[in-house]
Amino acid sequence: MSRMILLTEGMSNPEEAKTATGLLRYRGEEVAAVFDSACIGETAQDVFGVGGAIPFVDSLDGLEADTLVMGIATAGGELPGAWRDIIADALRSGMKILNGLHTFISDDPEFASLAAEHGGELIDVRRPPAGLVVSSNEARNTPCFRVHTVGHDCGVGKMLTALELTTAVRGRGHTAEFLATGQTGIMITGSGIPIDAVVSDFVAGAAEQLVLENRDKEFLFIEGQGSLVHPLYSGVTLSLLHGCAPQAMVMGYDPTRTTIRHSAKPMPPIAEVIGLYEAMANVMAPSRVVAVAANTASLQESAARELLVSLGESLGLPATDVVRFGCEPIVDAVLEERRRVGEGAED
Amino acid sequence: MSRMILLTEGMSNPEEAKTATGLLRYRGEEVAAVFDSACIGETAQDVFGVGGAIPFVDSLDGLEADTLVMGIATAGGELPGAWRDIIADALRSGMKILNGLHTFISDDPEFASLAAEHGGELIDVRRPPAGLVVSSNEARNTPCFRVHTVGHDCGVGKMLTALELTTAVRGRGHTAEFLATGQTGIMITGSGIPIDAVVSDFVAGAAEQLVLENRDKEFLFIEGQGSLVHPLYSGVTLSLLHGCAPQAMVMGYDPTRTTIRHSAKPMPPIAEVIGLYEAMANVMAPSRVVAVAANTASLQESAARELLVSLGESLGLPATDVVRFGCEPIVDAVLEERRRVGEGAED
Repeated sequence: MSRMILLTEGMSNPEEAKTATGLLRYRGEEVAAVFDSACIGETAQDVFGVGGAIPFVDSLDGLEADTLVMGIATAGGELPGAWRDIIADALRSGMKILNGLHTFISDDPEFASLAAEHGGELIDVRRPPAGLVVSSNEARNTPCFRVHTVGHDCGVGKMLTALELTTAVRGRGHTAEFLATGQTGIMITGSGIPIDAVVSDFVAGAAEQLVLENRDKEFLFIEGQGSLVHPLYSGVTLSLLHGCAPQAMVMGYDPTRTTIRHSAKPMPPIAEVIGLYEAMANVMAPSRVVAVAANTASLQESAARELLVSLGESLGLPATDVVRFGCEPIVDAVLEERRRVGEGAED
Repeated sequence: MSRMILLTEGMSNPEEAKTATGLLRYRGEEVAAVFDSACIGETAQDVFGVGGAIPFVDSLDGLEADTLVMGIATAGGELPGAWRDIIADALRSGMKILNGLHTFISDDPEFASLAAEHGGELIDVRRPPAGLVVSSNEARNTPCFRVHTVGHDCGVGKMLTALELTTAVRGRGHTAEFLATGQTGIMITGSGIPIDAVVSDFVAGAAEQLVLENRDKEFLFIEGQGSLVHPLYSGVTLSLLHGCAPQAMVMGYDPTRTTIRHSAKPMPPIAEVIGLYEAMANVMAPSRVVAVAANTASLQESAARELLVSLGESLGLPATDVVRFGCEPIVDAVLEERRRVGEGAED
């Protein structure tokens, strides 16, 4: 088991430190500390709402850890310049560096030579596998039931929802796999394809490849990326949607977003966004949004429950907060949709 | 001026030999011959419907030419294995190789060493420029009038339409630029970004960069790629659409397509496809399809005229075949849309 330090120096907020919070939630027992000199004295729980008593540090000295993880997932994915010294220090102490940014550290001559000298290792999880090709429209012909978590915006919990659903559906006695399509999901599970780092012509093919490799499972939960209405990432979202050809979608939703993240554009109404996803998905294969996974972290519990009821009524769909209230209503909707669709399907 | 041989060996059909036909149409005076041993005795005009008396050859011997061009644009963009010997021969005679496939010839050790030995050159136009970044949503704030040629399918004449419109609008006394987004357009004009070869996260940013670099023009005609309803390329199409943020779209249409190319999927009705483009474009900025550019090559002239009238009536939009009947109705529609939009715009 690795012992990780999560590097979030200067960026310990839920928007940028997505990779850190994902690892704290799903591999927390392997995290020794979070590195951010601005948060000394606080715990991971205080800052991120997850991670319990895991402390913040501002130095690697005296820590029992073998891996330094770049804990952020920023727009553009560049390595913050101020982090170079911290990475170099880690390499001098023989640590492995786990990086999910678009900037590949294994291409950096200084880091490469430090790693060679001190026996460290540079791992870029966002480097796509070789040999990817264009899609062959094959995913839609697989017998597995493909569920895609999508969102009205980026950073609304699409990965978390897919991970939780995978566990819950297994708990109901089915075989299920989570398919990681982004850096954090790949770090959590150890497999997947970082589809936003793939040459754009091959993104649908990469998603299809993930599905084909896992077609023997009853259920696939495919992690969504970005949003069809997010102007930076919409094309990644659409390639992934068409490549994995889901029979069902689960809609991630954050009621606090009034504008689309990284833009000044007003957020379209959730019903409109659901309509766009269904229209675009149906270009490939019949598919419906079957449930809403809302992030109500910013609301009091009673207000959260009211929101979920009102969402459910206005959209005619089950709605829950997966972290706060569990994902069982979504699992019910997914199983029901599989029964409904299955009457005419191959399996 | 270069003297080119267009290599289409075994693939001299309009679907695969897109790059050859584009160069024959727009740089035909520089084309010495087309290389395909299956077409000896025929002219370019016979086989491609463009290129006049330019002959086919099955050997490079005795040809006065300095450049061998990979004349195809296939799904996946791989180099046909049988072409390696022809390329090697060309390099031995000191020729330059111009390649637009996804497979980069300059990364090939055999070709690189032959080029070095014989003074040739290996040019991969689909290698994206360094330093691309995510979009900043800036294109929509430029004062130029941005016209994007889109399509219900790939290979319906989006590049050709954008090139013709650029020339025609200049002829009306305006400044205008064609923005190449694919390999053939780049080979024709000598500039542009091959957006389907860009890392998917950066495609919208690449399109935006093209717009920003040309923002001083009155009109920009941005070459479209793929189609929103084409399952292999839909994400590339959407990133480009959101990245360039057009105020107007011109819809490329081929009435002979009953299924989407490279797939068994039935072609959705053209009105439905127009609706999808407008819905997705409007996520970014207000935009309408203002005209239809139909490819009627397979119809008799009277049937073609009937089709255009019927398309125009059913869609409420001007429709023409740019090659057969010229693009003036589309130019009128674009100028009119600019006047209409311009009342509230910056310029």
